[in-house]
Amino acid sequence: MKKIIAIGLSFLAVIQVVAQQKSIQERLGYPKETKLLIIHADDLGVSHSENTASFYALEKGSVTSGSIMVPCPWFLEVASYAKSHPSADLGLHLTLTSEWKLYKWGPVSTNQNSMIDDHGFFNDNVEALVKNASPADVEKELRSQIEQALKAGVKPTHFDAHMGCVFSTGEYLQILIKLGREYKVPVLLNREAEKYVFHVDIDKYITDQDILVDKIVMANPDDFKKGMADFYSAALQALQPGLTCLLLHAAYDNDEMKAVTVEHPDYGAVWRQADFNFFTSDACKKLIADKNIKLITWKEIKEKLIH
Amino acid sequence: MKKIIAIGLSFLAVIQVVAQQKSIQERLGYPKETKLLIIHADDLGVSHSENTASFYALEKGSVTSGSIMVPCPWFLEVASYAKSHPSADLGLHLTLTSEWKLYKWGPVSTNQNSMIDDHGFFNDNVEALVKNASPADVEKELRSQIEQALKAGVKPTHFDAHMGCVFSTGEYLQILIKLGREYKVPVLLNREAEKYVFHVDIDKYITDQDILVDKIVMANPDDFKKGMADFYSAALQALQPGLTCLLLHAAYDNDEMKAVTVEHPDYGAVWRQADFNFFTSDACKKLIADKNIKLITWKEIKEKLIH
Repeated sequence: MKKIIAIGLSFLAVIQVVAQQKSIQERLGYPKETKLLIIHADDLGVSHSENTASFYALEKGSVTSGSIMVPCPWFLEVASYAKSHPSADLGLHLTLTSEWKLYKWGPVSTNQNSMIDDHGFFNDNVEALVKNASPADVEKELRSQIEQALKAGVKPTHFDAHMGCVFSTGEYLQILIKLGREYKVPVLLNREAEKYVFHVDIDKYITDQDILVDKIVMANPDDFKKGMADFYSAALQALQPGLTCLLLHAAYDNDEMKAVTVEHPDYGAVWRQADFNFFTSDACKKLIADKNIKLITWKEIKEKLIH
Repeated sequence: MKKIIAIGLSFLAVIQVVAQQKSIQERLGYPKETKLLIIHADDLGVSHSENTASFYALEKGSVTSGSIMVPCPWFLEVASYAKSHPSADLGLHLTLTSEWKLYKWGPVSTNQNSMIDDHGFFNDNVEALVKNASPADVEKELRSQIEQALKAGVKPTHFDAHMGCVFSTGEYLQILIKLGREYKVPVLLNREAEKYVFHVDIDKYITDQDILVDKIVMANPDDFKKGMADFYSAALQALQPGLTCLLLHAAYDNDEMKAVTVEHPDYGAVWRQADFNFFTSDACKKLIADKNIKLITWKEIKEKLIH
């Protein structure tokens, strides 16, 4: 009897090793050489301009997925859209910062004195958050955002983080991973970004069952200066087999968005209009087809890999 | 000695009666026949569209005064304007409701469970507020809004109330009057409106020192349907001696404002554009001059009558 159990356990161990060695594209049922790409619009809820541009890019453009900022003024407009478009792939862009100058938001949960500025809004940078907010405070606020989204009728397909707020320390990351498991949604996780951007060793917190994105692509201010179409075209041309997540911010360069992003050209209204323009262009669609890129949603990943 | 005191007291009583009998225009140093008019833009802070239209109407149009909604997303944009335009006549539009469908705001103070809906926003109507929020809760929230405005650099010239929230019961009104005295600013008070709209006997709460507006003019949905220019022209033509306060809502009929006021034509984007159009028109300016109307600010009233 003991021997049978021992053999059984060894067999299980072999299966686990095989599972571990399988690429994400294989786990999802695609050949190993498949170039899987999530084209993801961040910051839904931040403004009406962001919402309408992102909805258009999801419906008519090449964007496959987006995530919602629950504490922001236009959250309910996205929740309403999510209810009337149940197949839209919308997750939560968990938010603990409020970065613009004259247009701000604060915590959804109460008595969060460790994560607000003098005026009751979230801090405008992640460093101030990390310096002051305990993991318990962070967990309380993240849970409130998730519960508020569920109450408003959103069924999140994934979780990620605004300005990397909960990617930025091991303790915060651990909470994010725990919440993903609890609510049974995939979380945007990438070993490279955790290591080189946030100096966090992701392997301390994940198991073989967690879903890792092989590569994250996001334009930086230098790319913006050189031209967004060139940057994104080059990124699509260079795409490798595996799962890539391309993060963008779509909005119209209109009065509202100019005012939201006033005095902040990086990630500003012109930047967001350029993102919108590329990811609703025929050139983008053609490149995706020519390069044999397989677009995918977080919903597909959730349905196939999370039980 | 007793006799002298008695005579002194009688003399004081006579002075008081004279003060009481003096009209507001006389108390302000104008002849009795003067038609004083405050042209007042409500709802600053609600949106960027409302802010920029109201700033323009204050600077280039006939609007003399405006009031700010502290809990709203675009509050800091008005606070910034107030600091860079110290002569602008800006008060606080104390806010305890959030009336639009997909764009909302909530209390500035914490643990205000009696004045929020299921999603943590203010109720969308005054009845729900009155039914649930104790005077103590209301006072706490109003004080937080005032203190937040002061902290952001706003020096309010007056207080009034969004959707009449704190005009609507005697207990709430008493708090508003108390806060006006404490912060030494005039409060928008009108005997007629309290009596006929809110069924509150204002004389239970005021003294001879309080400042009453003789008449409040505001368009209603029927006036909007018939045409705003006609309504406002008729109101200016019919203006009587005394102090009148004309309340309007200026915004641009643009994407942002259409979305804020979605499914709500009353006080909606077209309405607010019509208000803007009239109060920035030459026709309005000409009528004010022709009818010998004296425009006045809350700041002048505050400086002359509140010590």
